Amino acid sequence: MQIDGERMREDFDALAAIGATAAGGVDRPSLGEAHLAARRWFLERAAAAGLATRVDAAGNHSALLAADGPTLLLGSHLDSVPNGGRYDGALGVVAALHVLLAVRGTELPVALEAIDFTDEEGTLVGLLGSEALAGTLARETLRAPRGGRDALLAGLARAGLREDELALARRDPESLAGYLELHIEQGPVLERAGVQIGVVTTIVGARSYALVFRGAAGHAGTTPMDARRDAGLAAAAFVVAANELVVRDFPGCVATIGDLHLEPGAYNVVPGSARVALEFRSGDGAELEALETALLDAARREADAQRTELEIAPVGRWKPTPLDAGVCDAIENAAAALGLESLRLRSGAGHDAQAVAGVTPAGMIFVPSVAGLSHDPGESTAWEDCVNGANVLLGAALRLACR
Amino acid sequence: MQIDGERMREDFDALAAIGATAAGGVDRPSLGEAHLAARRWFLERAAAAGLATRVDAAGNHSALLAADGPTLLLGSHLDSVPNGGRYDGALGVVAALHVLLAVRGTELPVALEAIDFTDEEGTLVGLLGSEALAGTLARETLRAPRGGRDALLAGLARAGLREDELALARRDPESLAGYLELHIEQGPVLERAGVQIGVVTTIVGARSYALVFRGAAGHAGTTPMDARRDAGLAAAAFVVAANELVVRDFPGCVATIGDLHLEPGAYNVVPGSARVALEFRSGDGAELEALETALLDAARREADAQRTELEIAPVGRWKPTPLDAGVCDAIENAAAALGLESLRLRSGAGHDAQAVAGVTPAGMIFVPSVAGLSHDPGESTAWEDCVNGANVLLGAALRLACR
Repeated sequence: MQIDGERMREDFDALAAIGATAAGGVDRPSLGEAHLAARRWFLERAAAAGLATRVDAAGNHSALLAADGPTLLLGSHLDSVPNGGRYDGALGVVAALHVLLAVRGTELPVALEAIDFTDEEGTLVGLLGSEALAGTLARETLRAPRGGRDALLAGLARAGLREDELALARRDPESLAGYLELHIEQGPVLERAGVQIGVVTTIVGARSYALVFRGAAGHAGTTPMDARRDAGLAAAAFVVAANELVVRDFPGCVATIGDLHLEPGAYNVVPGSARVALEFRSGDGAELEALETALLDAARREADAQRTELEIAPVGRWKPTPLDAGVCDAIENAAAALGLESLRLRSGAGHDAQAVAGVTPAGMIFVPSVAGLSHDPGESTAWEDCVNGANVLLGAALRLACR
Repeated sequence: MQIDGERMREDFDALAAIGATAAGGVDRPSLGEAHLAARRWFLERAAAAGLATRVDAAGNHSALLAADGPTLLLGSHLDSVPNGGRYDGALGVVAALHVLLAVRGTELPVALEAIDFTDEEGTLVGLLGSEALAGTLARETLRAPRGGRDALLAGLARAGLREDELALARRDPESLAGYLELHIEQGPVLERAGVQIGVVTTIVGARSYALVFRGAAGHAGTTPMDARRDAGLAAAAFVVAANELVVRDFPGCVATIGDLHLEPGAYNVVPGSARVALEFRSGDGAELEALETALLDAARREADAQRTELEIAPVGRWKPTPLDAGVCDAIENAAAALGLESLRLRSGAGHDAQAVAGVTPAGMIFVPSVAGLSHDPGESTAWEDCVNGANVLLGAALRLACR
């Protein structure tokens, strides 16, 4: 039993045409017109192939292969970041559909469901559909969504969804047999290693902080170097120190200063304040905690060194999510059975799997991203790798179905 | 012969009321209504005291004490930066007026002229009046003025000035006996040293550059530290390196990174580009050159270390201006005769004196700035220091008049 790579290619290309951008990517922000068109295409394609379909109260779109047993979910998402690439999310949904097409006609002890989760990317909320399914979508999150309240309400209205009904999408964990997701890696690890299949052991946790260094603005000509309280220098020294300590003491972790804003911000004025956007990630809860301590200590040290004040405000936090060991083994065995090399690795990005993992054994399969590029129209994965990934998804699904 | 400190205080306060701000400073941008009102006040005050007055083709406003000989100019400016302080410029003009009032009745071999130069601060052009007087106001400067062409034309119209006649303000160097300017230090050197009078030996030169580090934007979660080409890190490392090398190798010089802008600028994206506003100053031409080489080398080194590209675009340059040794001696001797301590120092800021120094022996007297504050409503100088400065201006003027 295997995936029909050519038919999958046709479907993948048809999907990539919906919301296609001139740069070769797709622009399908969650619950926008292009995204809704992609979801319609998915249901119509499944129905045309004779599969049952459903849309739940959170707008999750599914194709179904019924059976007398719990449901094994295979999924990902059809929304994209604004001006994103064509592989992120879409590959996992198309591959899941083709697993159902390959399995059709074979009796399994579990139902198979290819599911397209609502708003994974967070244009509106982030993991909206998968958290609704897991029963963890918080009311507070909906009240102050990432993309703003107006955008959320407009999106729900366009999709014909009701905010007060989203939670009805919750599934009873007893009804689920597991979750598998095929996704592009979005990083360079598999390509660098020359390995075709990644087995995701953990989805890393992340925390973010807004740091503000406050010194004293001063005339750039008349304020001697030793009389300055240069907030920009304090911030810069922190950027350097943060990078050094992560590389030296926290291998496998990342820390990023993605934005830095100086006030008043002129050639001839010593910066009086510097606002720094800090984010860091680790796959391990204790390590994330230690990384936070080390980073914030470094910020305090550099603030002191320049005689500046430091304000620390938490912005976001999300826990590391270990994926199921048995599911990881199933993926690894499926790859080996196909003669494919696999590598265990962490996912540095968030995925629907982290929501679903709370209620059913979940796993993820990564395929290599060319040059590690992601969230970019140039995002790409060799088609052969895509088909390999789909076949591993199929093999792992069969292993989980029959265990 | 000495300054009438009480009358000078009355005049200083009357002037500070024109364009006064709630925060205690003044808002008198060049050729705006408040600035024009301050200039009218100056001429009316001089005329009321029986002094002759004139306004030249560049709008420079003067009070005159005629004599059969060349003219010794005593001046500064009545314009302010937006929301500036009440001492910057204004003190020098009021003190010059009071030197004329103190000298009146005494026959001197030189004429004395208290002059208020047009647009020193550069809201429109910068040093407009003093460069016109020196004959160095460039046509190109007027075509692309700092504050924009529209603001310049509107200001000239408000003041009744004609662009094509500004150059007529040029004075024959033979007609001049020298130039003296009393100004607040705008820095902390005198206050730190506990000295009342600063003798400015040089007005520093400055150069500025826009540096752009170009790396690669990347997903903050999926791009390992060693796979990054982080433009923000390269820029931060340059900020740290620039500060270190100036402090270590260029004592007395300053270098400032006053602005830094990251793209795309988000918590979860490794910065793909970083734009840095670099400015540096030295009192010596060769040192300024060496400082430039050291700073741009450091930028290249840090760019390389992060595998980023570096673009270097010059933004501005202004040469160091040594002031006249004889005038410095006259100021120093005048201070000593009054029992005041003096200190030779550089001016880190630009002044009208740097334009006038090209055509006649020029010197500057500094008085202490409280906490070195400048271009701020809180800018302040003890009134006793202001009167001391005015008396040194008077003493130095008499010495130059009679040499």
